[in-house]
Amino acid sequence: MKEVFGSPGKVSGLILRMGQCLLASASIAVMASASGFSSSTAFCYLIASMGLQVLWSFVLACLDIHALRLKRDLRNHVFVSLFVVGDWVTATLSLAAACSSAGVVVLFVKDTNICKVENKLSCDLFQISVALSFLSWFLLAISSCAMFLLAASD
Amino acid sequence: MKEVFGSPGKVSGLILRMGQCLLASASIAVMASASGFSSSTAFCYLIASMGLQVLWSFVLACLDIHALRLKRDLRNHVFVSLFVVGDWVTATLSLAAACSSAGVVVLFVKDTNICKVENKLSCDLFQISVALSFLSWFLLAISSCAMFLLAASD
Repeated sequence: MKEVFGSPGKVSGLILRMGQCLLASASIAVMASASGFSSSTAFCYLIASMGLQVLWSFVLACLDIHALRLKRDLRNHVFVSLFVVGDWVTATLSLAAACSSAGVVVLFVKDTNICKVENKLSCDLFQISVALSFLSWFLLAISSCAMFLLAASD
Repeated sequence: MKEVFGSPGKVSGLILRMGQCLLASASIAVMASASGFSSSTAFCYLIASMGLQVLWSFVLACLDIHALRLKRDLRNHVFVSLFVVGDWVTATLSLAAACSSAGVVVLFVKDTNICKVENKLSCDLFQISVALSFLSWFLLAISSCAMFLLAASD
């Protein structure tokens, strides 16, 4: 298998996984601390989807650390096939969650005056959480493309 | 280049492109005929994104017909590289548009009683349009994966 930026068991792959994990956790923390988030299904789905991404990225980061410490090569056919399916499913769910929340945030902030009328909604925190989830998705998309290239070159 | 379902210049590829084109056009038509769609940025973005998808799929369908009639092989490196970038950009934009609109529709229909209170909003048409855009994205995702596999096996 050829060398790709963000391959499993490499330092670049580990940095990507840790970035995904941190950004998704920050997105959950900000959204959960915003008052009134439970009023929209999209925000609850964002928390669930980012939770799945934290779990997935954390497990793969642990695997990368394990491989780096023992100098193991994770780029075999079974591992890469598993990673590519998991990465693409998680990336699609994360993008869907980030976009549906962004749609609701734009409706609250720009299209209507809900944010000005309803003082109990933390609209600033909603926006920060959605921005963090997009950044987290972007890092996951890089990992997913690396996995797809690895699997296709197999 | 190997044979993949949905390759450019093949009957399977042409059927996929025509399906994308028809479903995206239907999504635009339903959304544009719904009263009150301009009240949400997400719905306007859905129309713009589906418009881009109609254009892209229509051009590729015409190329497929041309290749099938003249028995040309479109699977060369330059074409496939162009198709893979265009397909992935269009697919990501379509998913983003479908999900942001879905977030707003769920807010209207389930989370709040906006649809019951505001009689001028065509909530049923919003739902049909979003469902059609998801179907259109699904066909585009199949084409995108086929292109990625073709490009990676090059």
